[in-house]
Amino acid sequence: MMLILSILLTYPHFLSYKVHINFQNSFMGGIFMNKILMTPGPTNVPEEVFAAMSQNMHHRTDEFLKVMYDADKKLRKVFGTQNEVVMLLSSGTGGLEASVVNIFSPGDDLLVINCGVFGRRYADISREYGVNVDEIKTEWGQGIGPEILNDYLDKKKYKAVYATYSETSTGIKNDIKKLGSIVKNHGALFIVDAVSAIGSLKFDADKYNVDLAIAGSQKGLMCPPGLSLLALSDRAWDAVLSSKMPRFYFDLRKYKNSSIPYTPGVSLILGLNKALDMLLKKGLDNVYHDADIYSRAVKSACNILGLSEFPDKRYCSEVLTALWVPSGVDDKLLRSQMQENGVVIAGGQGRLKGKIIRIGHIGYLKCDYILKTIYSLGSALNKQGYKSDVKGALGEAETVLGAIK
Amino acid sequence: MMLILSILLTYPHFLSYKVHINFQNSFMGGIFMNKILMTPGPTNVPEEVFAAMSQNMHHRTDEFLKVMYDADKKLRKVFGTQNEVVMLLSSGTGGLEASVVNIFSPGDDLLVINCGVFGRRYADISREYGVNVDEIKTEWGQGIGPEILNDYLDKKKYKAVYATYSETSTGIKNDIKKLGSIVKNHGALFIVDAVSAIGSLKFDADKYNVDLAIAGSQKGLMCPPGLSLLALSDRAWDAVLSSKMPRFYFDLRKYKNSSIPYTPGVSLILGLNKALDMLLKKGLDNVYHDADIYSRAVKSACNILGLSEFPDKRYCSEVLTALWVPSGVDDKLLRSQMQENGVVIAGGQGRLKGKIIRIGHIGYLKCDYILKTIYSLGSALNKQGYKSDVKGALGEAETVLGAIK
Repeated sequence: MMLILSILLTYPHFLSYKVHINFQNSFMGGIFMNKILMTPGPTNVPEEVFAAMSQNMHHRTDEFLKVMYDADKKLRKVFGTQNEVVMLLSSGTGGLEASVVNIFSPGDDLLVINCGVFGRRYADISREYGVNVDEIKTEWGQGIGPEILNDYLDKKKYKAVYATYSETSTGIKNDIKKLGSIVKNHGALFIVDAVSAIGSLKFDADKYNVDLAIAGSQKGLMCPPGLSLLALSDRAWDAVLSSKMPRFYFDLRKYKNSSIPYTPGVSLILGLNKALDMLLKKGLDNVYHDADIYSRAVKSACNILGLSEFPDKRYCSEVLTALWVPSGVDDKLLRSQMQENGVVIAGGQGRLKGKIIRIGHIGYLKCDYILKTIYSLGSALNKQGYKSDVKGALGEAETVLGAIK
Repeated sequence: MMLILSILLTYPHFLSYKVHINFQNSFMGGIFMNKILMTPGPTNVPEEVFAAMSQNMHHRTDEFLKVMYDADKKLRKVFGTQNEVVMLLSSGTGGLEASVVNIFSPGDDLLVINCGVFGRRYADISREYGVNVDEIKTEWGQGIGPEILNDYLDKKKYKAVYATYSETSTGIKNDIKKLGSIVKNHGALFIVDAVSAIGSLKFDADKYNVDLAIAGSQKGLMCPPGLSLLALSDRAWDAVLSSKMPRFYFDLRKYKNSSIPYTPGVSLILGLNKALDMLLKKGLDNVYHDADIYSRAVKSACNILGLSEFPDKRYCSEVLTALWVPSGVDDKLLRSQMQENGVVIAGGQGRLKGKIIRIGHIGYLKCDYILKTIYSLGSALNKQGYKSDVKGALGEAETVLGAIK
């Protein structure tokens, strides 16, 4: 509240363009002081989704079956697939595990493109279940060039290749379309962790030759955490049927054709169904367009603040902006000062802990969230003696945000 | 709405005692027509819990760690344990699987007390992961006598014994305290599926010698589905450390000491924390007292309607009332007519499909939910030519409900 007032007092022209300061989420009628989540997930959930979640409904009723059917139909559009999308009650990691225990048998060969924490996690899960894993490890901050993948696949036959679409630990994205065509040429299955990308970055599972795509509810899909979503091609379903891995809760055979083997995430699915309505009403092209604009606004404003991006510019993801912490600045203090101002951003993971900060800009966003984030980041930096041009950064962000639809 | 009005017109004295007709959940200001869920789960969620769930919060913040800490502290009271309670993002079946893959190694011996669908499910999960399972199968509708368990344990050494506290497929409950002391005398671990019982039936994990108790959010704990809750004794934690089962998402070692290895069910945990406040404010003894009264009211009213209970009376659970479908009555039609009147009850599972109906009376309840259920059940029966005494049943229910605290 204080923060927004001080922005307004200092820069009253920020109410111009299509930028409207909106207190709804940060003040909510004076009862809650909800923080805004500018992380690569969980992201902000709109009030409409919370309202949809707040219904008592039983899963063994026709009305819930209709919700499942509707949500699946809409998810197919967002995944870009003709195939059904399975909704599991678990976090994204549960979804990754579900893909491993359903596609492989112990001893199968898998090639993991490991660009960071989530690539490494997929290799770890697969090894835990006895899969033979080879890894292409990129430097952190790099994506993978298609020719490297091609070389690997020329040398050895794999049952499947795994890639992360948007690797949130480092801020990069991979060119799934190009990788998919190489994997297809070599006859392997293509498994894509699209957890943070679906609903934010253009995705077309069928056209990109993706056999198994995994998403989560708490990213671009504007819901709280709790659902992992899996879209499988016919070839992937064949693999599921022939897999010899032990599995029970995550056994996808039981979920086929929208079956409900165990109590599903009723409230979350009601919320997801509503969130999908909102995305499709806006139009997916507009959603991706705006995600790009939000990303540009943050990246160019942070540039003016004097911060450098961590990843190689050729691979920068629009899902988040990963930035080096300037020398002399304490990352933990920075983030806690931003939190006091109502803005949550993420720190580095694994070996990047303390070295980078990560600003997510996906899910439910408003222009003032971006401005608030830039203002709060610049102010927190300056509190530590760093001299950033907050006014200039806000002006730049505002200019870029003018293109929001 | 129509239904409640017609009850009022016919039996205006139902507003006496402590019975207050409350339109909040069934009408909600004219926007939603929420059904009441009179099933053994998911159960009705109070507005306060939905409101608590409707907050944007990130799991890597001090404020969320405090919520986790608070919820754990309160859960220990409800579980009756000094040990921490792990919160997994999954349905109850995921919680059962987590117990299997953490306690056992392939080849270990397990004795399953199988009284219905959930006992059988535990045996199925365990076999899927290579555990050697012996089963004591009771007739459906029966619980287990302690002496039978004693005989089994005298004859063979097991690593663990599994029992269901309240078996919702048949409507029975087992005497966990008695069973626990026998298991302890034989040195085995005692694993209890308390999914539908926790928050409804008195439970005291430590005193009952339960080494691993599993609960779910969507039953007595008044939340939507999505959290499975596991309380482990020190001996159970030792087993977790020595288990050689492959596991990743459900690896309890990673969750110990309230650690958050993967994105947790933030919204659900916020809701659970609120629901626990409500239960503890009411007082657990009052909660269990009322659960008993609700159960008596339904059972005696159904008796007057002319329906017979399915389970052996010695083992009847207070969680639900399982009733034979009278001959000449179509169970599916009956339930769909009740749904049209805004009341959801459950049918039979497995071999009991079409033969029994199940009325759950746990979670968030009001006296008028019980009256509405009895009225709606009696009316639906009579529509099929059955001659039930609806007025008498309502009068009986009202009398019993007078004892609600």
